Amino acid sequence: MDIMSNQINQGNKMNSPFSSELPDKILVYQNDKGEGKYIVDSENTGIPAQLNGIRIERLVEAFKSPFQHISVYESTYHGNLLVLDGFIQVTGADYFCYHEMIVHVPMAVIPPTPQTALVIGGGDGAAVNELCKYSCLNKIVWIDIDADVVRLCRKHFPQFFEYHDTRVEYIAMNGADIDFRNEFDIIVVDGADFNDYGADLASQRFMGKLNLALKDEGVITMLGWWAWPYREEHLQIKKLAQAHFQYTHYYWHVDPTMPFGYMGIFLMTDSALAPNIPEHYHRVPEKLLRYYNAELHSASFVLPTCFTKEEGFIHG
Amino acid sequence: MDIMSNQINQGNKMNSPFSSELPDKILVYQNDKGEGKYIVDSENTGIPAQLNGIRIERLVEAFKSPFQHISVYESTYHGNLLVLDGFIQVTGADYFCYHEMIVHVPMAVIPPTPQTALVIGGGDGAAVNELCKYSCLNKIVWIDIDADVVRLCRKHFPQFFEYHDTRVEYIAMNGADIDFRNEFDIIVVDGADFNDYGADLASQRFMGKLNLALKDEGVITMLGWWAWPYREEHLQIKKLAQAHFQYTHYYWHVDPTMPFGYMGIFLMTDSALAPNIPEHYHRVPEKLLRYYNAELHSASFVLPTCFTKEEGFIHG
Repeated sequence: MDIMSNQINQGNKMNSPFSSELPDKILVYQNDKGEGKYIVDSENTGIPAQLNGIRIERLVEAFKSPFQHISVYESTYHGNLLVLDGFIQVTGADYFCYHEMIVHVPMAVIPPTPQTALVIGGGDGAAVNELCKYSCLNKIVWIDIDADVVRLCRKHFPQFFEYHDTRVEYIAMNGADIDFRNEFDIIVVDGADFNDYGADLASQRFMGKLNLALKDEGVITMLGWWAWPYREEHLQIKKLAQAHFQYTHYYWHVDPTMPFGYMGIFLMTDSALAPNIPEHYHRVPEKLLRYYNAELHSASFVLPTCFTKEEGFIHG
Repeated sequence: MDIMSNQINQGNKMNSPFSSELPDKILVYQNDKGEGKYIVDSENTGIPAQLNGIRIERLVEAFKSPFQHISVYESTYHGNLLVLDGFIQVTGADYFCYHEMIVHVPMAVIPPTPQTALVIGGGDGAAVNELCKYSCLNKIVWIDIDADVVRLCRKHFPQFFEYHDTRVEYIAMNGADIDFRNEFDIIVVDGADFNDYGADLASQRFMGKLNLALKDEGVITMLGWWAWPYREEHLQIKKLAQAHFQYTHYYWHVDPTMPFGYMGIFLMTDSALAPNIPEHYHRVPEKLLRYYNAELHSASFVLPTCFTKEEGFIHG
């Protein structure tokens, strides 16, 4: 019961030539059962309210691209783990919660049979993978600024590329520079930094470009972060979306390796559809899915009262 | 970007005469914005798959009762924080998610107007507090083995005692030794260690006593832990419940300071009610609540596919 038996130390002996340049925070946690190494989620706004760490075995590969530091770890229980500039992005254990929810929810509500899709960001490949499960799609354009993320994930997360096929066109460019007109039924924005509202992917200009790229009855989903406790930031993104789309909806799902254990998604459209009713669920490749289902679709639009009222425990 | 700038060290300078005996794991996390101290959730089965830490300012009070080590911390963003034998129990920021869900769900479905309630465990007082919001109840028996937890929480979590009144009878005894017959409409079991199935509160004997104590149309809720990824353990508890009650249901809610960000609850009854339809929602003191609402009630019984299929990332 002595605190001295619970030693938490900094670990810095990773099997990599890049170890001295890793932006990743690694700690060694000891108790009387042994010890383990953990990646702790980074934080660029200050000292975080909660710490979140995932147990790892070893660094698999680290690479410094022109855009960011990319690390892939082998974790103990979560499969491989992708870390970009020190931020935990995705794990092999629970990636499907988020990726299924950001893709199949819009696919189950869009009125016309969707034929064209655009993914912006999502360099890990998993959102594109979910879209490839739909035979109705004949074109999937995928834009991510960093081809090195795509390359490393193709190597270390083969399950994110299982259904990729010749319909997918990958373009390495900044999503903020897209210039499409009325081309896509579905757009998935799998990026946009929550802590940087001036960033390219969370700007008035980008929202306008998204609207231009979307067909009249099209649907966009976009990483929506936490309505609670980050209420103020949530409302800021929502306002930005509402300025460009007639309808902005928010739904959520469990995401065990993210802070607060859940994640929200915005659904933006100019179409007066009922977002919480999966009217076209018959399209969904149900047998290939592990999180999403028809009942869950509707339930995910039902929010706890604290998500909608003025509540929060994190300020500043 | 140098890992050496991210120092994570053990902290051991708490303002307490008990500091050298604290079973709590405390770490100091540093980045270039400063540093913070964190309580890291303890783990008695080995080295945990994920680390979960809450930022603290100082130890408010620590006490070694005949049953356990009790600590109360002032956290930075989560209000006060209760830790028992090194395990994070409850925070002032998000306690209401769990406590509202374990109380108001059964209150909204039980067919006869509930008049008598029993709480076993829940030494923090918050489950009793939710029950006290119902004027239809005329007797609330509260049994927790450790009166010192009750005493410390009354002092440091006054919001958990706001609605307590003369209907509440507190008895300091082991919940496993109850001996009631057909006395309660509602029983809330706010305890039972997930990692110790032989324990008093997760035994065949205790389940039998619960069934005896419950009226024919009564409803019991009980901390149900995680259906995913701890599928095997989940099924083990479910089987125990099913051996004693005709119907065992499972629902879930967001719980940001718990591992995996959510928590599940079992609802056990011999009454053929529809647990997911809040037929008696009119009873619920809606204006006093922050998480639970009628729509959320139904949604909380809808489970992601991975909660019901054979899935999991934590083994052994």
